[in-house]
Amino acid sequence: MSRLIVTYRVRSDAVSIEARARDIATEQSVEMPLAPIDDAFVKSEIIGTVEGIADSGGGAFDVRVGLSAQTIGGDAGQLLNMLFGNTSLHDDVSLHDVEIPAELAGLFGGPNGGVDALRRRVNAQSRALTCSALKPQGLPPEDLAAISGKLAEGCIDYIKDDHGLADQAYSPFAKRVRACAKAAQNATRASGHATRYAPSLSGNLDAMRLQVDVARDAGIDTLLIAPMIAGWANFQSLVRENRDIAFMSHPALGGAQIAPPLLAKLFRLLGADAIVFPNFGGRFGYSPDTCRALAQAALGDWHGVKPALPVPAGGMTLERVPELLDFYGKDVMLLIGGSLLSAKDRLADETAKFTEAVKRYSYR
Amino acid sequence: MSRLIVTYRVRSDAVSIEARARDIATEQSVEMPLAPIDDAFVKSEIIGTVEGIADSGGGAFDVRVGLSAQTIGGDAGQLLNMLFGNTSLHDDVSLHDVEIPAELAGLFGGPNGGVDALRRRVNAQSRALTCSALKPQGLPPEDLAAISGKLAEGCIDYIKDDHGLADQAYSPFAKRVRACAKAAQNATRASGHATRYAPSLSGNLDAMRLQVDVARDAGIDTLLIAPMIAGWANFQSLVRENRDIAFMSHPALGGAQIAPPLLAKLFRLLGADAIVFPNFGGRFGYSPDTCRALAQAALGDWHGVKPALPVPAGGMTLERVPELLDFYGKDVMLLIGGSLLSAKDRLADETAKFTEAVKRYSYR
Repeated sequence: MSRLIVTYRVRSDAVSIEARARDIATEQSVEMPLAPIDDAFVKSEIIGTVEGIADSGGGAFDVRVGLSAQTIGGDAGQLLNMLFGNTSLHDDVSLHDVEIPAELAGLFGGPNGGVDALRRRVNAQSRALTCSALKPQGLPPEDLAAISGKLAEGCIDYIKDDHGLADQAYSPFAKRVRACAKAAQNATRASGHATRYAPSLSGNLDAMRLQVDVARDAGIDTLLIAPMIAGWANFQSLVRENRDIAFMSHPALGGAQIAPPLLAKLFRLLGADAIVFPNFGGRFGYSPDTCRALAQAALGDWHGVKPALPVPAGGMTLERVPELLDFYGKDVMLLIGGSLLSAKDRLADETAKFTEAVKRYSYR
Repeated sequence: MSRLIVTYRVRSDAVSIEARARDIATEQSVEMPLAPIDDAFVKSEIIGTVEGIADSGGGAFDVRVGLSAQTIGGDAGQLLNMLFGNTSLHDDVSLHDVEIPAELAGLFGGPNGGVDALRRRVNAQSRALTCSALKPQGLPPEDLAAISGKLAEGCIDYIKDDHGLADQAYSPFAKRVRACAKAAQNATRASGHATRYAPSLSGNLDAMRLQVDVARDAGIDTLLIAPMIAGWANFQSLVRENRDIAFMSHPALGGAQIAPPLLAKLFRLLGADAIVFPNFGGRFGYSPDTCRALAQAALGDWHGVKPALPVPAGGMTLERVPELLDFYGKDVMLLIGGSLLSAKDRLADETAKFTEAVKRYSYR
């Protein structure tokens, strides 16, 4: 099996960067002095190799390190461990990019359905998709269900749980999810639009599997998961065990040390069909360039892995719909949460304005 | 249930910090504009509250935010989500400290055995403990087993897997663990010292449970886990399901945005009996102050949670043993990995020098 090429962005001066690059290559592979190693296989295959160093400007360098794909052992958690386990503990390094061999792409497999599956669910082949969020956490199931119904009445495509909704005593998962699914389904029958509700999974793998069962029983075929919290290996398992379910990934706990486009690419690799991320000009500091690169990482050709749909979010407003569609084109799911919810009694109408604006837009 | 008080360290100017603090409190709780919220419970309990702002020097402020313990829902993953889910995506914020109510400490429970259990295993009540690591990854089981045997021959207390050892084709978990356990046990019979071997868990929860079974079958009672990779909820489950096993936590993927002493404190809360971390003066940038605070977070009185043993590591050498024991005292497990392995054929002797130095030291 061939090698992964991992790019680390390192704040360093020019004098120190070569030694630093070698240190990172060692840290992310054998993690010991090289002198005492005499095993031929370890020497030729396992020891990390410095493949290149480039000045990336602003006092930082991009260090390319080659790692053996055999060290991954086919496990998503171990992939993350090999990419950034110990090196994440250095505050002057970020994980910038990864090129993986085709075998690894095939092994992890990517989304079960990807963009097409999300489009088919809501019968929307040639426009952007729409999404909103159930919140705030703390509301009882019936109040969240009421919001779910109003969003569906306004013909939203996807309703996702706020990622803070878990299995809390004041709003237990099963009760909440059944109520929210039913409210959306009832409104959907009235509206004629196939709105989907995507609850958020939490807890250990056992708990998440039970939640998948509850969701299936409630007629749900789309789920939200935060892989950095759930564990990558658990996420990968759920994707493999539920080929007919679409998974939206949430970036919670993604941190600032893994480049957002790379995190999106890796979530896609593990099986995210849609990738939620903080859009530029909202509550987070991502730039338009970062968001463009992220959308490309989600959608671009990549070892035959199906494309995932970018879902810009985080303080978006109705007024920005044309600007965002100009920017992202039709292969996007726009997520407006709090700004719609601020309409309160007019929530269904405000949602309809959002979904109409997305339908009316002239896609190139 | 009462509230968690979470301290975020925020790079900010004095003019902006109040608004920024309110934004963080909102982001980590209801994650939406406050105006449309009229539910009395959400308003009084769930919305995050700014409890204080203090200038921490160097252009940063410590913002104390109160969060409802009810939002945690008793789940370790959700604890991490509530503490730092979305706010981790800001590159100018770190998670600095958390005060938790006694109920939460009781709910998560801390280590099964803690420091005492680790001491009892190796019959060492009144001195520091010793540890080394099996590496490099890439070696076949028999070569790792040979190292394991030599370390045990030198009367090391604990042998941990390098956290890069997973379930790779060239060294499958079951075969490797059986071989390394047997080698250590054989040497232990000869040496008379009760050396323990702690293999590293990886994969999803199912895989880790199978690995625990394999380890138990091989007579193992101590395991290594990297909670940031394994998933906090999985880690907590394994701790609860295996009350007689001691868990060492590895900081892989801990990143630089969660203060190391806090990460140690949280690993202790979830059940780590021993906490591996990068020592000052080694390959990582932690300061002596950080390491002292970390040891205190592992060992200090805290809601009746058992103390966990700090395990400084990462480029340590035999020469530093007296210095490190002066610094940490007897409640520490010193981990020397690569530096011992560099002795190659003299590995057992070099290990004996290490373990003798730790035994000979005059503890106050």
